[in-house]
Amino acid sequence: MTLAQALFAPRAVALVGASGDAAKNSARPMRFLRKHGYAGRIVPINASRNEVLGERAFRSLAEAPGPIDQAFIMTPGDSVERAIEECGASGVPVATIFSDGFADAGPEGAARQALLVARARELGVRVLGPNSMGLVDVPGCVALTVNAVLEMDALPAGTTSFVSQSGTMLGTVLSRGGARGLGFAKLVSVGNESDIGTGELVDLLAEDPGTKVILLFLETIRDAAKLASAARKAHAAGKPVVAYKLGRSQLGAALARSHTGALAGEDAALAAYFRDCGIVRVDMLETLIEIAPLLSGRMPPNLPRAARVAVLTTTGGGAASVVDRLGTFGIETVARDSESPIVDLTMTATAERYTAALDDLFASPRCDGVLAVVGSSAQFHPQLAVEPIVRSKRNAKPLAVFLTPHAERSLALLAEGGIAAFRTPESCADALAAFFSWRTPRARPAGAAEWPRDLPRRGRLDEAQALELFAVLGVPVVEHAIARPPDFKYAVPYPVAAKALSSDILHKTEAGAVCLGIADRAGFDREVPAMLKRVAAAREVLVQKMESGLAEVIVGYRDDPVVGPIVLVGAGGTLAEIYRDYALRLAPVSEEEAAAMIAEVKGLATLRGYRGLPRGDLGALAKAVAAISRLALVHGSPVAEAEINPLIVKREGVIAVDGLVVLKE
Amino acid sequence: MTLAQALFAPRAVALVGASGDAAKNSARPMRFLRKHGYAGRIVPINASRNEVLGERAFRSLAEAPGPIDQAFIMTPGDSVERAIEECGASGVPVATIFSDGFADAGPEGAARQALLVARARELGVRVLGPNSMGLVDVPGCVALTVNAVLEMDALPAGTTSFVSQSGTMLGTVLSRGGARGLGFAKLVSVGNESDIGTGELVDLLAEDPGTKVILLFLETIRDAAKLASAARKAHAAGKPVVAYKLGRSQLGAALARSHTGALAGEDAALAAYFRDCGIVRVDMLETLIEIAPLLSGRMPPNLPRAARVAVLTTTGGGAASVVDRLGTFGIETVARDSESPIVDLTMTATAERYTAALDDLFASPRCDGVLAVVGSSAQFHPQLAVEPIVRSKRNAKPLAVFLTPHAERSLALLAEGGIAAFRTPESCADALAAFFSWRTPRARPAGAAEWPRDLPRRGRLDEAQALELFAVLGVPVVEHAIARPPDFKYAVPYPVAAKALSSDILHKTEAGAVCLGIADRAGFDREVPAMLKRVAAAREVLVQKMESGLAEVIVGYRDDPVVGPIVLVGAGGTLAEIYRDYALRLAPVSEEEAAAMIAEVKGLATLRGYRGLPRGDLGALAKAVAAISRLALVHGSPVAEAEINPLIVKREGVIAVDGLVVLKE
Repeated sequence: MTLAQALFAPRAVALVGASGDAAKNSARPMRFLRKHGYAGRIVPINASRNEVLGERAFRSLAEAPGPIDQAFIMTPGDSVERAIEECGASGVPVATIFSDGFADAGPEGAARQALLVARARELGVRVLGPNSMGLVDVPGCVALTVNAVLEMDALPAGTTSFVSQSGTMLGTVLSRGGARGLGFAKLVSVGNESDIGTGELVDLLAEDPGTKVILLFLETIRDAAKLASAARKAHAAGKPVVAYKLGRSQLGAALARSHTGALAGEDAALAAYFRDCGIVRVDMLETLIEIAPLLSGRMPPNLPRAARVAVLTTTGGGAASVVDRLGTFGIETVARDSESPIVDLTMTATAERYTAALDDLFASPRCDGVLAVVGSSAQFHPQLAVEPIVRSKRNAKPLAVFLTPHAERSLALLAEGGIAAFRTPESCADALAAFFSWRTPRARPAGAAEWPRDLPRRGRLDEAQALELFAVLGVPVVEHAIARPPDFKYAVPYPVAAKALSSDILHKTEAGAVCLGIADRAGFDREVPAMLKRVAAAREVLVQKMESGLAEVIVGYRDDPVVGPIVLVGAGGTLAEIYRDYALRLAPVSEEEAAAMIAEVKGLATLRGYRGLPRGDLGALAKAVAAISRLALVHGSPVAEAEINPLIVKREGVIAVDGLVVLKE
Repeated sequence: MTLAQALFAPRAVALVGASGDAAKNSARPMRFLRKHGYAGRIVPINASRNEVLGERAFRSLAEAPGPIDQAFIMTPGDSVERAIEECGASGVPVATIFSDGFADAGPEGAARQALLVARARELGVRVLGPNSMGLVDVPGCVALTVNAVLEMDALPAGTTSFVSQSGTMLGTVLSRGGARGLGFAKLVSVGNESDIGTGELVDLLAEDPGTKVILLFLETIRDAAKLASAARKAHAAGKPVVAYKLGRSQLGAALARSHTGALAGEDAALAAYFRDCGIVRVDMLETLIEIAPLLSGRMPPNLPRAARVAVLTTTGGGAASVVDRLGTFGIETVARDSESPIVDLTMTATAERYTAALDDLFASPRCDGVLAVVGSSAQFHPQLAVEPIVRSKRNAKPLAVFLTPHAERSLALLAEGGIAAFRTPESCADALAAFFSWRTPRARPAGAAEWPRDLPRRGRLDEAQALELFAVLGVPVVEHAIARPPDFKYAVPYPVAAKALSSDILHKTEAGAVCLGIADRAGFDREVPAMLKRVAAAREVLVQKMESGLAEVIVGYRDDPVVGPIVLVGAGGTLAEIYRDYALRLAPVSEEEAAAMIAEVKGLATLRGYRGLPRGDLGALAKAVAAISRLALVHGSPVAEAEINPLIVKREGVIAVDGLVVLKE
């Protein structure tokens, strides 16, 4: 019995805490299992009844006749722990726990959960939840959930599976999809993910012959590495993984603590993670439900330029509402010939002409995708409206259809034909944008990076040490020296900058710990003693040559608690922060990937020949970004965060003039 | 007989070109009028039949028995002109023209349209269209349209009216709204707006007792002044006006031509226009359909700070999907007490508790609006799910409801209760954001601005003239002089900048027409002759004192061909352009309004005390913006566009160092 079988095809299910009152939530699993045709045995466990809704009930799992493949636990309080013990004793391989009061209920609950899972491991019992609403295998007729949406008469079967951190969303997706003719295979509410998590489920679904597309509703990511490897496995199996991710998580606070973190924000780090894992990210909830046919059987387009979509419509206004939105994503619309970018067959369109025009677009090398829009006719003549699309000679090119009126029958007919149809212009554009942003999972450079022998591996490095580390990684750093009391000698060509040297000052300029443009020794002797008086923490002074160039850039590294090591490049000064103008990737990156990151930063346009300005050495910048990203390859990952701000970009070369490195505790 | 009566309550309608073949588009108006219970006379006009679908038909309008209040013209080609002549001869006050081939068909068609309208004016016939799909008055049972959606059995009556530049959208809104239990009063497809346009219709609807909210679907704005005054009238009548506007229009090209235009972009100018007219702008098409109950009977909130929304939900994931989106609009969520900002009554919620919690939020001074989210129960127990909301003690505070499952019955019940309900988290958030951005129409400063007597009123001003104009308006300008051949004398304190003086050079730096930081006369004599050799167009040199300050700002003015005079303030250098970081308003603006604009520009954070940087004189900047905006008050509006780039902001004061003024031809 594999985990997948126990979860999705249990031969017998024990309902621990099943109520005899049909109106109660805890009666739902039995009602739903029966209603949707579960073929296995249902074994209610109820401490005070011999019978539940007409089924023989047992006092405990110990008394129940075996073998039982999955226990669904709904009882409150300590009884959950008892039930797990009984699962272990009776050899029940999987316990799905609906009961709450664990990690969902604060630190005390989290501690209780940790104990529970540890004990379950000892007993050999795998756990889904706690706080899981259960799971559904639609083709397998397993409706093992308390979600009220399962009241629906028939569950829509299909090849899209769904893993959700919100139990409600399991019903939402099933209900909204079903109303649209979209079918599903397996749906799982993961709850607190104490044991079986999103990553492991994606891994199982990657192997599931009944699953072609995997949808995720995420509030956080609890095991980024596992999900990443599962996503790669799904990619290898030709199964697209799609994520809708809420922006909030417990990590916001941690991320905001440090400078790079405040810039990166959790969402940007997660966007980099999804991209690098080959996960398609959608912006709108409805897109998550609608997008599967657009992805199913297709591969990441990995377009090196803006996507070009051809548009065929029977309504100008309807098409424009999608095209307008596509434009905001940087997607271009292309004309068939040299005419308007929209092929409008308004009202005069015959079915044959519509199909012929579509066939042309599928065959044309001038577009990467096709958008078909149908107006009012879709409501009352669905067959007529949809047939010209269904009959077209479709190919690997993605086809998205938007219907302007309320037209559920037409939507269902398109779904039946395996065609991606969208209810709103916004979700239609969102899906196309998500499709064209979809990338093959990125292979990160392997290898090891050395750690300078004289540097500590814990605590904080001072700036001189930070510059040393950057230099060892391969980043050109400013000429500098440490001036020490009592005579503060140094040999750096003027003009110089002097900085109070202390690992305790995070924002030196604001602390008055920097003197710029010192022209000679007299200047140094005039300014530096005053500075050291201001900054009591420092006794030594970092003296460095003044440097100037075409632009200042920020390069950052952070071992993100959620997604792991990330590297950032952004416009320098206040720009990265004020405009959130930076690019992020999982670290390490190759120089090529670093170049792609640099191309994403708007403010660096000034270095790319914008308005005739001199070009900066973007090759050297890419080398520096790749170098910093190799902090991820240092054995033991001692660095919590590192930042060069600014890295000065010149016509030839770059140079780091200010560095910060924070090690892990 | 008023125009409104002839349009929406015609006692008799002539259908010119009505087909006897029920399957044809031109048979639809007769079928739809009958189907939806039109009580007036229907008079088919058909050149070749005596009878149309059982109704006595006439060869021409001249033969038809009068009086006829509106003719609906569907015939092709020249017959439209003939029909208009006949309308004039028979005293038909309004002709609605479905036929196309006018302004919709290129310049030749536009010329034909101009002739048609001129003739109609002579004849005293008002024209809706051409290329109009017609109109519907739902409560009045007038379904005078070819839109196929009118096949629907019953039209949903209500108090929301709709004016659309897309004929298809008339059906889309009716069909989607109807499926949701949302009702409508009057719906008009304006087509080419050759005579009766959006503005005049909004004006009529502002007076219509059956209309409480006015929706607009816009592809362009053909008469901004008329729509602006109609929107003000609607506001005065307590009727919110809502616009969904496509980004594209013929104006893109014109706007991109000039510098300020390229910055402003048409959409930013339109956003300023909507805001200043008190028009609520929605981002998503579905929001347009769903938002009416949120606005109906309410006034613009004019919040001086971020809006605070309280959230009550039975599903954490469902609420989070809305709240996450609200955050992107800068809307805050507030807690009832000090707990989580979301009040989650998951599964344990009783109807009484839900209602009581809602009542608390309506009464609380801590929030500006309430969001209620209902999970799975909304699908199969609509009455139970919706009742706690319907029963709550609602007040002027806006209430938005989002239902997570497919729950049409619940949506309809909420609509019946006059409660704004949303089908997607995105449209729900969009509607709340639109509501909280809603402003009372702004009164623009009146008065007149003088034009310097020695300046021309046509062509282009050179930079010295531009600086003169700015000084007269009240903007401090840099100390400067014109140095003329042969000896190029000037008296400006060093260091100075020298610029080749010519009104033919738009981008001086790129043309090599600027020498900066000239330290003395020797430097001038070294650099300027070379510059004048590079720039053949110039013979004179503008010499100005070098200035520096805390930041550079761009201030621009443009007489936009669509919305009229606008004023812009943005971050200087390349920032405004690269980051599209600027604020726009219709000109003129008061200093207070200018201050509000400045607060919107992110890049000016550096002048607001960001990270301990010195503060700039934002009062002086606001004065300068208001001064430039007064170009709109110059008699005859001679200025096409004007720009100060940069205006240098100091700790005290501002100073214009570079000016461009383009006059109208």
